[in-house]
Amino acid sequence: MDCRIQELLSTRRFGELKQLLSRMNEVDIAEQLDSLSQKELLLVFRLLPKETAADTFSYMESDVQQSLISAMDDVELRAVLDELALDDTVDMLEEMPASVVKRVLQNCDMQYRASINQFLRYPEDSAGSLMTIEYVDLKGKMTAAEAFEHIRATGIDKETIYTCYVTDKNRLLCGVVTVKDLLLAKSESRVEELMERNVISVRTLDDREQIALLFGRYDFLSLPVVDNENRLVGIITVDDAIDALQEENTEDFEKMAALAPGDESYLKTPVLQHAKRRIIWLLVLMLSAAVTGTMITHYQNSFAVLPLLVAFIPMLMDTGGNCGSQSSTLIIRGMALDELHPRDLGRILWKEIRVALLVGSALAVVNSMRILLQYHNPLLALTIAVTLMCTVCIAKCLGCILPITAKRLGADPAIMASPIITTLVDACSIFIYFNIAKLILRV
Amino acid sequence: MDCRIQELLSTRRFGELKQLLSRMNEVDIAEQLDSLSQKELLLVFRLLPKETAADTFSYMESDVQQSLISAMDDVELRAVLDELALDDTVDMLEEMPASVVKRVLQNCDMQYRASINQFLRYPEDSAGSLMTIEYVDLKGKMTAAEAFEHIRATGIDKETIYTCYVTDKNRLLCGVVTVKDLLLAKSESRVEELMERNVISVRTLDDREQIALLFGRYDFLSLPVVDNENRLVGIITVDDAIDALQEENTEDFEKMAALAPGDESYLKTPVLQHAKRRIIWLLVLMLSAAVTGTMITHYQNSFAVLPLLVAFIPMLMDTGGNCGSQSSTLIIRGMALDELHPRDLGRILWKEIRVALLVGSALAVVNSMRILLQYHNPLLALTIAVTLMCTVCIAKCLGCILPITAKRLGADPAIMASPIITTLVDACSIFIYFNIAKLILRV
Repeated sequence: MDCRIQELLSTRRFGELKQLLSRMNEVDIAEQLDSLSQKELLLVFRLLPKETAADTFSYMESDVQQSLISAMDDVELRAVLDELALDDTVDMLEEMPASVVKRVLQNCDMQYRASINQFLRYPEDSAGSLMTIEYVDLKGKMTAAEAFEHIRATGIDKETIYTCYVTDKNRLLCGVVTVKDLLLAKSESRVEELMERNVISVRTLDDREQIALLFGRYDFLSLPVVDNENRLVGIITVDDAIDALQEENTEDFEKMAALAPGDESYLKTPVLQHAKRRIIWLLVLMLSAAVTGTMITHYQNSFAVLPLLVAFIPMLMDTGGNCGSQSSTLIIRGMALDELHPRDLGRILWKEIRVALLVGSALAVVNSMRILLQYHNPLLALTIAVTLMCTVCIAKCLGCILPITAKRLGADPAIMASPIITTLVDACSIFIYFNIAKLILRV
Repeated sequence: MDCRIQELLSTRRFGELKQLLSRMNEVDIAEQLDSLSQKELLLVFRLLPKETAADTFSYMESDVQQSLISAMDDVELRAVLDELALDDTVDMLEEMPASVVKRVLQNCDMQYRASINQFLRYPEDSAGSLMTIEYVDLKGKMTAAEAFEHIRATGIDKETIYTCYVTDKNRLLCGVVTVKDLLLAKSESRVEELMERNVISVRTLDDREQIALLFGRYDFLSLPVVDNENRLVGIITVDDAIDALQEENTEDFEKMAALAPGDESYLKTPVLQHAKRRIIWLLVLMLSAAVTGTMITHYQNSFAVLPLLVAFIPMLMDTGGNCGSQSSTLIIRGMALDELHPRDLGRILWKEIRVALLVGSALAVVNSMRILLQYHNPLLALTIAVTLMCTVCIAKCLGCILPITAKRLGADPAIMASPIITTLVDACSIFIYFNIAKLILRV
């Protein structure tokens, strides 16, 4: 379909292009504008049906938005801004250079500008930055019929009309009512009889990860955001919650692979930026591993006597790392899904120790058989088996203690994942290995 | 609040308990039934308001559901089944032993039983197993007012009423119309004038991961599922898509940490099950690492001459592993989000090579300085620096080539993550290390 837009543009078949655009989904159009020049971009944008132009705009990548804004005149810009939901405008501005922000703000009316400025002040990961003010606001005394009238009169500009929020005269949130409730009720029923009074709401500064989990838990389509006095200040819709959920998951994947956070997609991130995101942790972990190396030099005499000892270092290190990363991944994910909590540490540790004994024994048995077959040395097999057992136990314990400790200290448990745990387990297992070797093999 | 239910139960204050339950959210009630005995469970369930009992039931853990079903008589069971959405019934039955499934099916009417049996046949990760048949079905000739009448008459049992599906007399899907469109339209407008004809739909056998991505992309509240002839067979709602998304993410986290998939939450999984999920990959990777070990024995003469060489093995192995896991994580996640595709391999590889050169140089410089300070041996520093550069390059290349190859072969790229890549990179870097040492240090 990509080539089709391009083709119709280059052969100047604008009539057909307009028809094509009117049949396409806004998300798909936005995606395909990515590859156009600024001039083509403006041309295509002007051919969009009026009612979908702003929607399409909100789905564009921020570099495309910026290119388009600088190509538009003020009248066009105002027309787009008028149709754009407040949260989309704020999202857009967060990515723009100061000059563009200034031009956009100049083209908003005063009240809208004030709202934008307020929203831009919320921290990036908070409910405040995720919410929108375009919600349907009902009063308890309204009848179902009046509520529908209100929705009909104001609904066109709302992010969602399906969950309506009931506030009193002080803007305090007192209930929610869904369009389904209203539709299935008698038209003279009062909103206050139909509404659910036990409203689950979030605060403006609540973390978006927690909010995304609430959507998953309660199957909401939207969630009200209140200030400290329980006044309704906005709502968060499920589509924004899904986006937040995906971003949080991506962040966890990246943290767990020793990557500093990044905003752009892989291909759009320049090489230097990629290198920057990776170098810090690599340096830290490399220098920590050097400590393990220095430790090894203390055991030179051991492997001078029995060089074969060195051959088992990779296997011990890898197995320790893998065991630790299995445990830490289960714990970190469990905490991210709110299924595990720091108070469960005792139960988790008890479980991990038993798992470690089982898994460690199995690995030790298999590995001993291999060593007996390959080197015919029972004492060596015993040394490796004991070391393996200890390494697996330490790895599994660190794998659950460290993420939980991080969480307790208010840090993100995802930091305490495979890379750090591997480095720590390496040091422990090398230390244990050579000391057990000294003991059993007398080297 | 947990103690509150327990407390009211034990002091037999059932009136208060009933009141408490009527104010609580179904999800929260379901969660707290987890710790009750079968007798208490049935008692609490009977105190639930009639309209929320089935909803609460659908949110319970499957062991609680099973315990409750065996405590209920057939009349009660039928009452719950009548209110339960088809997809929730199917989800429940997927987890139940055969005897419970039989009893449930015996208490369904014939048509419902047929639908259940059909749904149970869809593969677990498919659109078919995620969908429900409780959707609002409109005809193109209906007016908006008639559509509302239809929704009012049938909407109470539907999973969602907000997106309505328009079918012709052959059940072919011909459009969607939202309640918002209907509400904002004149009451005499026809559905066929209001509906969107370019419907994005999925097939019954489509993968749920792709479907979850569609929700994220298009901000849908529900998505129609059609058969091969484009006949509407069901819909998927956004709440189920969020659950699928979270499960897919969890699966990826686990695969990337060399864990076999598991269904239960961490604490509910027995120790033996935990051990089973971990042992397979640990064994495979342990035995692969043994190959690296055997390789090392070929270089015994080198580290007999210069034992210090052994000290750098942990650092080289860890750094290689970390570099590989950074790249593979970015690539795997990019493909999971549909941002990267196998066709991008060339661009990705070119980017990774440049990143590897930058990152490798930085690591090599820092490490050389450390070695010069600690051991005053420039040739050793050079050996390690060259090995580091090669290791980083290989790790970054494998980190992007392997997941992409897995995807091309139709396997899950998440398999080709840190553990496997670390094992492979280890072997390469040990080989390079000792050969370069031979060349530069003449050992």
